[in-house]
Amino acid sequence: MRNVATVFLLALVAAAPAPKPKTPTEIVAAAPASVWHTIPADDLLVMQLNSGAKIVIQLAPEFAPVHVANLRALAKAHWWDKAAIYRVQDNYVVQWGKNESSDPLPAGVVAKPPAEYARPLKNLAVTPLPYPDDYAAKAGYALGWPIGYDPKSGTANLTHCYGYVGVGRDLAPDTGTGGELYAVIGHAPRHLDRNIAVVGRVISGIENLSSLPRGTEALGFYKERSQDVPIAWVRLASDMAEAERPAFQVMDTRSADFSAYVKARANRKDDFFIRPAGGVDLCNAPVPIRPTPAS
Amino acid sequence: MRNVATVFLLALVAAAPAPKPKTPTEIVAAAPASVWHTIPADDLLVMQLNSGAKIVIQLAPEFAPVHVANLRALAKAHWWDKAAIYRVQDNYVVQWGKNESSDPLPAGVVAKPPAEYARPLKNLAVTPLPYPDDYAAKAGYALGWPIGYDPKSGTANLTHCYGYVGVGRDLAPDTGTGGELYAVIGHAPRHLDRNIAVVGRVISGIENLSSLPRGTEALGFYKERSQDVPIAWVRLASDMAEAERPAFQVMDTRSADFSAYVKARANRKDDFFIRPAGGVDLCNAPVPIRPTPAS
Repeated sequence: MRNVATVFLLALVAAAPAPKPKTPTEIVAAAPASVWHTIPADDLLVMQLNSGAKIVIQLAPEFAPVHVANLRALAKAHWWDKAAIYRVQDNYVVQWGKNESSDPLPAGVVAKPPAEYARPLKNLAVTPLPYPDDYAAKAGYALGWPIGYDPKSGTANLTHCYGYVGVGRDLAPDTGTGGELYAVIGHAPRHLDRNIAVVGRVISGIENLSSLPRGTEALGFYKERSQDVPIAWVRLASDMAEAERPAFQVMDTRSADFSAYVKARANRKDDFFIRPAGGVDLCNAPVPIRPTPAS
Repeated sequence: MRNVATVFLLALVAAAPAPKPKTPTEIVAAAPASVWHTIPADDLLVMQLNSGAKIVIQLAPEFAPVHVANLRALAKAHWWDKAAIYRVQDNYVVQWGKNESSDPLPAGVVAKPPAEYARPLKNLAVTPLPYPDDYAAKAGYALGWPIGYDPKSGTANLTHCYGYVGVGRDLAPDTGTGGELYAVIGHAPRHLDRNIAVVGRVISGIENLSSLPRGTEALGFYKERSQDVPIAWVRLASDMAEAERPAFQVMDTRSADFSAYVKARANRKDDFFIRPAGGVDLCNAPVPIRPTPAS
């Protein structure tokens, strides 16, 4: 038998608006500390421009180990100090580095790395993206990275999303040493996937690259060397004084919080949205990254 | 019975290397004049910044007629003269316009346009994109524009690809007047499709927007009004002196050349490529546009 109090309570429940679904940002902000993994300082490449602007790149040794070892050796040898950004192509890439013929590669750099354009899928814990992909059999996430993968061929590859960093190369069989790198500053050129070694992603300061003046020559190269944007230095965070080191964390792509975030990206219900898409492409659901919170 | 000449011919054919497949750029360059349609001068909105930089926007009256009529009326009234770019959010949008409360809308501007977020699919000659889409039942092209469409609901919508221009709005039921516009300067934010009126695309000078300094406030707003990028004027090309008018052509999206171009974008066989993707997403196969050739 209902008493008055119960009826009153039911009325309250009926009147309460449905709880507002969390936005992707809110889901990420509410995720517990346990889903955040600190990026090793050896996986952070810090580039400082002469202007003082800093760019931090997270390296992906799990996908391109030989190229990443090269990048570490180049940074340790201070090889990129006084290098320059010499190409900025709108809606495509910013490219930087040094001429390997005039500046010989330091000891320990592999001159002809293998074509690290994909890796075995085996032993990767994949969180599938439950939406179709135009560039791979399937799309998903593994080890904190977006991937294209193919269960048939058993391979997985990093993808050219906004801010992702690849190794400039000449025609095959050249694979590039890592002396010249580029970062994506436009709509994801996913057709480059599995054709170039992707070695990491810009996790801080991409705006210092994406807002640079575009080059006016073919492919966005600067016409005059005087237009080049000078790089002061490039270091591994692990080689910087501890007080100077940047520190970042990446969200665990196997966590329920991450899956909830992807789902919310695909079904935006912020007050602004009228029609949620019901889907999202891989590069439009980037893996959340944050500065390591002060402890 | 084969004669000697036939055998010789067969040998020649066997020895000839397979013809090199044309690149997307080569296909577009080789397309006949008949597949290029001149954009009406009334559909071209020209914006000049105080810096002298010009941006040309092609309007889409077939998709958002009331909003486009507003844009034409605003341009004719010189309403945007001395307006400003006040928001530049990295990997998202550049936004500009004027405050409608301090600058009343000129006569002829509809204060509350309908929600022109999609149009009837009926009577549209659609060239389907033969690859899946994450944001619409199907993707394709019609009237020279990329579209998402749904044969079930019978609707078609313009898509938020790089360089596309939409109308800033407040929460629904507001649809925006057109007084404040934005252009996409990053990875396609397709989740905005069918939630905002897309009114056109930047067809020249997007680099003058995409390379602007990013705003440091939330959502990329500039912190100080002194950081705003001043706009000198905005005019319809049809209201400019004939000698000053920009003139552009768009490729016919029903043409065989266009389909060949899309197929080549999905199957890149330039010398550089090792593994063609076998697919392409809508925003990575943009409709070719060119300045009208001198006759």
